[in-house]
Amino acid sequence: MRVVKIEGRGGPEVLQLREAPEPVPGPEEVLVKVHASAVNRADLLQCMGLYPAPRGVPADIPGLEYAGEVLAAGSRVTRHRPGDKVMGVAGGGAFAEQLVAHEREAVAPPPGASAAEAAAIPEAFFTALDALLMQADLRPGEAVLVHAAGSGVGTAAVQIASAIGATAIGTSRTEAKLARLGALGMAHGIAIAGKEPRFAERVRELTSGRGADVVLDLLGGRLLEETLAATAERGRMMLVGLLAGVHAEVSLGTLLTRRIRLTGTVLRSRPLEEKIAVAQAFERQLLPLFGRGKLRPVIDSALPFEKVREAVQRLSSNETFGKVVLAWSQP
Amino acid sequence: MRVVKIEGRGGPEVLQLREAPEPVPGPEEVLVKVHASAVNRADLLQCMGLYPAPRGVPADIPGLEYAGEVLAAGSRVTRHRPGDKVMGVAGGGAFAEQLVAHEREAVAPPPGASAAEAAAIPEAFFTALDALLMQADLRPGEAVLVHAAGSGVGTAAVQIASAIGATAIGTSRTEAKLARLGALGMAHGIAIAGKEPRFAERVRELTSGRGADVVLDLLGGRLLEETLAATAERGRMMLVGLLAGVHAEVSLGTLLTRRIRLTGTVLRSRPLEEKIAVAQAFERQLLPLFGRGKLRPVIDSALPFEKVREAVQRLSSNETFGKVVLAWSQP
Repeated sequence: MRVVKIEGRGGPEVLQLREAPEPVPGPEEVLVKVHASAVNRADLLQCMGLYPAPRGVPADIPGLEYAGEVLAAGSRVTRHRPGDKVMGVAGGGAFAEQLVAHEREAVAPPPGASAAEAAAIPEAFFTALDALLMQADLRPGEAVLVHAAGSGVGTAAVQIASAIGATAIGTSRTEAKLARLGALGMAHGIAIAGKEPRFAERVRELTSGRGADVVLDLLGGRLLEETLAATAERGRMMLVGLLAGVHAEVSLGTLLTRRIRLTGTVLRSRPLEEKIAVAQAFERQLLPLFGRGKLRPVIDSALPFEKVREAVQRLSSNETFGKVVLAWSQP
Repeated sequence: MRVVKIEGRGGPEVLQLREAPEPVPGPEEVLVKVHASAVNRADLLQCMGLYPAPRGVPADIPGLEYAGEVLAAGSRVTRHRPGDKVMGVAGGGAFAEQLVAHEREAVAPPPGASAAEAAAIPEAFFTALDALLMQADLRPGEAVLVHAAGSGVGTAAVQIASAIGATAIGTSRTEAKLARLGALGMAHGIAIAGKEPRFAERVRELTSGRGADVVLDLLGGRLLEETLAATAERGRMMLVGLLAGVHAEVSLGTLLTRRIRLTGTVLRSRPLEEKIAVAQAFERQLLPLFGRGKLRPVIDSALPFEKVREAVQRLSSNETFGKVVLAWSQP
């Protein structure tokens, strides 16, 4: 089968289309023919040698999500049959024509979704679901601040917030992205610019002085202090990315007196049972909302796997809105 | 009635014994004759003008906890009768011969406890209960790192951890305090010294490399980074004090990859319903353990209110072990 391999360390140029042996499913696993995948920042970091794959995952094949169909099912599989459409997240190895997944990790895509649409869903919606609903327990009526709202996770978070009756306030460097986010249900957009953007005051204005009850923070770093200032009493800050840096000066006085909860989170390295729990929650809680038009995948661009370097380059540009999808051409 | 008043700003010298009018209980409140109280760091901060009393509390009478007996009960009170012994936390105003409290905030002291013993319980045990069990959800078999383990909250936390089958690892500057903590159920003590103490490696050794599942941190500041390094994957760090400083440099990479949850918390400024929830949880979950000898108040010293300045001085010395109690002499 064809796969994308990391050969060396560096930028997109380390990615090569290669042949590799097909994986073999275990008794509780399905063998999936991958029709499409999508690019994540973790893939970029892995190319640079900064984010090695967790154990039990191909070390040199990136790719954290997939959409495709079941080719074969292990002897104890009960949820899926050959021919079923499936999608899901993976610890790595999804930039391949085939992969194996535990049957409870693989979920059905929304009815009628194309492979490209389905491939734009798992990482973005699983991450946002897990952070906003499962961990931060976002409730209707609450305000959620979503940084990098035009990203894959950001566009998913804005839609989920809106779908459950919460108020989404998004930040982006680009006014054009903020305009598009309005159509996804974002209530308020804040354009942030410069090295030390100020947005806490605006968030307070938009929340009657209270601040954001929940924050989905993909930035971290030097923006963390200002984000803390934008957070309400008993607010839950979910740190899911570190685009603005891995270190931060934190005002512990604010954290303490406002009783703020700051949680770091990452999906990739979790043990199987936790990944299954998120997949099952997705199937139960979010999948029905795709059918009702409350949620939809947001595709920035779709490219064939032959152009994987271009796709990775595009994600690095910070000019994307939603997901950069990769699809296998027919051989 | 006699009260301790803050007149001016500064150290213990601003505290004066004065006369003040008796408070009047509302329909759901009890009027309590205070037999004893205890000193907290918040009282010191309040003297310095750094920690103003929340609204609805006497602004110039410190004191956050009390033990005494019910003098009179409001018309709708059902839980207490005049003559009942009670204890509890207060937003302030407990350095007085009388105070009022909502009937559901006032709980029964352990049977047979003296007023001094009862006064050593509320802040320490309510805070530790709330942080360790209600918020961090500490479970049997888990390891909890307790900083400043010889403090009032520390001695309570060590006992609660031990009582529920968790492993308490305590830190203190003083070997003598660590020795005494062993008798309270602490499994391991770590003496920390100097401006930048190192203890993470030792905590990892004591936990088979895993780190502390829960941390009760009264220090914060420059020790936070080392504390983070001592925390396990999915660890819950509860920040309840800032003795080591109000700012910290935080490694967000560690927070994210280990999926650590850092929560700031404080009891004093909470709304009534949350304070009642903690008091009721104490009565249900911890009070029975005092009767069985699993928990006990730890009194460093007991002084009459006439010596309130000395008591405050003693707490500032950092040489205390457990609580500094204040009692009213008979007039």
